[in-house]
Amino acid sequence: MTIQVDYRFPPGVNAEKQAKVIAIGQTVGSWDDRFSHREDSFQLYLAQVIRVVVHDSGHSTATIEFPVGNTEGDIGSLLTMIFGKFSMAGAAKVTAIRLPDNYGQMPKIGLSGIRNRLQVQDRPLVMAIFKPALGLTADDHAGILRDVAAAGLDIIKDDEILGNLEIAPTIDRLKACRQVILETKETTGKELLYAINVTGRAHEILDNAKRLVANGANALLFNTLTYGWSVLESLAQDPEVNVPIFMHPALAGAMCGAPDHGFNYSTILGTLAAHAGADAVLYPAHYGSLPFEKSEEMVIRDALRSRNVFPVPSAGIHPGVVPRAIADYGNDVILNAGTGIMDHPSNPAAGVIAFFEALERVNKNQSFSIDEVPDSALKIALQKWMT
Amino acid sequence: MTIQVDYRFPPGVNAEKQAKVIAIGQTVGSWDDRFSHREDSFQLYLAQVIRVVVHDSGHSTATIEFPVGNTEGDIGSLLTMIFGKFSMAGAAKVTAIRLPDNYGQMPKIGLSGIRNRLQVQDRPLVMAIFKPALGLTADDHAGILRDVAAAGLDIIKDDEILGNLEIAPTIDRLKACRQVILETKETTGKELLYAINVTGRAHEILDNAKRLVANGANALLFNTLTYGWSVLESLAQDPEVNVPIFMHPALAGAMCGAPDHGFNYSTILGTLAAHAGADAVLYPAHYGSLPFEKSEEMVIRDALRSRNVFPVPSAGIHPGVVPRAIADYGNDVILNAGTGIMDHPSNPAAGVIAFFEALERVNKNQSFSIDEVPDSALKIALQKWMT
Repeated sequence: MTIQVDYRFPPGVNAEKQAKVIAIGQTVGSWDDRFSHREDSFQLYLAQVIRVVVHDSGHSTATIEFPVGNTEGDIGSLLTMIFGKFSMAGAAKVTAIRLPDNYGQMPKIGLSGIRNRLQVQDRPLVMAIFKPALGLTADDHAGILRDVAAAGLDIIKDDEILGNLEIAPTIDRLKACRQVILETKETTGKELLYAINVTGRAHEILDNAKRLVANGANALLFNTLTYGWSVLESLAQDPEVNVPIFMHPALAGAMCGAPDHGFNYSTILGTLAAHAGADAVLYPAHYGSLPFEKSEEMVIRDALRSRNVFPVPSAGIHPGVVPRAIADYGNDVILNAGTGIMDHPSNPAAGVIAFFEALERVNKNQSFSIDEVPDSALKIALQKWMT
Repeated sequence: MTIQVDYRFPPGVNAEKQAKVIAIGQTVGSWDDRFSHREDSFQLYLAQVIRVVVHDSGHSTATIEFPVGNTEGDIGSLLTMIFGKFSMAGAAKVTAIRLPDNYGQMPKIGLSGIRNRLQVQDRPLVMAIFKPALGLTADDHAGILRDVAAAGLDIIKDDEILGNLEIAPTIDRLKACRQVILETKETTGKELLYAINVTGRAHEILDNAKRLVANGANALLFNTLTYGWSVLESLAQDPEVNVPIFMHPALAGAMCGAPDHGFNYSTILGTLAAHAGADAVLYPAHYGSLPFEKSEEMVIRDALRSRNVFPVPSAGIHPGVVPRAIADYGNDVILNAGTGIMDHPSNPAAGVIAFFEALERVNKNQSFSIDEVPDSALKIALQKWMT
């Protein structure tokens, strides 16, 4: 079993040479006569250059095959091997990582489990974000949630920058919002997930996650790239954390935004996230103003779904985007709207309703041309975001 | 108390506009009349644009001041705030982060503590790396260590890609090498630190670190960027982990190598490392072939020393570099040589001796011109690496 990694080099770089540097320098390194008796052992750990392809643009891509046994089957040892020291050696971008199926871990709950918990099988899920991000009290959060919950929302999440702040401590937000979730369930029978942001030093994150779940949290939000892959892996494999973990992509641009350095977004937010145990992954969508390509988004979508991870395209999502999103994703997608719900001209509840109206119009193959949409929350949304 | 961050934008980017996007979008976000009663609260969390400077190159730098209270005093919440979502918004590079002195944590042991443990106060420390990186047994490691320890080495470290592999389990390496360390101490009175690589999922790393220390480990190596800042912070504040933590920079290039994206190396390997509790930090040096500027290296040096963290310039370090390194660093530096010790033409012990001979020649202001160096391990090293 092997790990294949594609490295793309800009024009002018000797890709053949760099490929050998990776295959040797990121594994065994060089050795001399003193260790000739270990030759057989070294050969087991050396990587191989599989191919080097030169593209029309002048870029080259080298594919290197690493023995799985060089790693510990986790993301930390994988990243250290494939792009640890070598990341500092000049322009090179990791454009694909192909892992064995059994590498890392599957989500505990995943796409199918999230659907089961919400008892929604046959449509995209609608997700909102608490806004404003900072400065509200726990009761303010509960008030917002009461509005959108009544409108049938599936999932709400904290803003990723909202940690355990004095004005709205995490446990207080949970308690206040949990009350709303229970009331909603009682009134309407509808389940609603609240992905609450779990933060702190690693030992605190692991403790806090368990404490939150013990106190009724039914989903977690985790900024994997700013706190650490190994923490996501611990959360994902902890049986006490028996709720879906939503991975937020904060910081991904720092390692995926540059043309000739770092990683393709799809390797980090697709492949690695799907092998680290995340149940759902947020990532930039191409619908808004972010410099993000549709083709890359579709690679993420497929990498996640192939391991039962829910794709959550984010940024630029509003009710007017629904037809395009359904065309790209079908039903197995979580439509995550921040301002696209909270800034609906009527109120956030109308933002949620507009999404469901949009989903229904798509189902019925009805037009989204504003003139043809009857007066509704959707029409107001289209007037705001599509004109 | 505030956090100041400098963001550099390439020519053509409207820096004033982006600065406002950061100040608002990475803190409170927008709000409407529904929350006008929280206005005072929002103002507490909003960031401020301090200045925007346009450089001769056409680049601009915006300085943003964030309230410390938006974070939890750790690296995870800091990174999420300053460059979480915004990292995905287009070309921008974080070139400096100015934190309050009491932000994060100081090293438990640090530069002065490492010197005290080694009882070496008045010269640079010499550090070697076990090579080859993979494929040796624990006994092979002990054999290598026996050689270089007898030559007076101060510190040895695992290669960062060597995890807990079957051929040389971490605990076996510790036991085998610890025996050599104890023997050396008995024979010569000399202490030697072995920075052993601690790996795994977060909860395993925290457990393994304690277990290794309980079994006599006297230093740890930790790949902070591939496993997570929050794990380093947990290790650093754990009183049971009462040994120095050497932070390895693996993966740093993925977020610091690009011209207009990510971070300056000095923010990650200098500022953040020094506020996360690392005792010593390895980083690329400008002496070798890595594309790394001296000025950036000197910023790292100063950021680390200002918080009692030992700077460990790495890559391209061999005995011939010693005069330049001392000119740049003086005594408070750890000279970390991989091949620069292990590939000495005579043997690794001669590699260590060559470093000490080089230090002595610098002290005595003696020439490093090969003709003027007497026959010695140093001369052989200079013949290999300086011609």
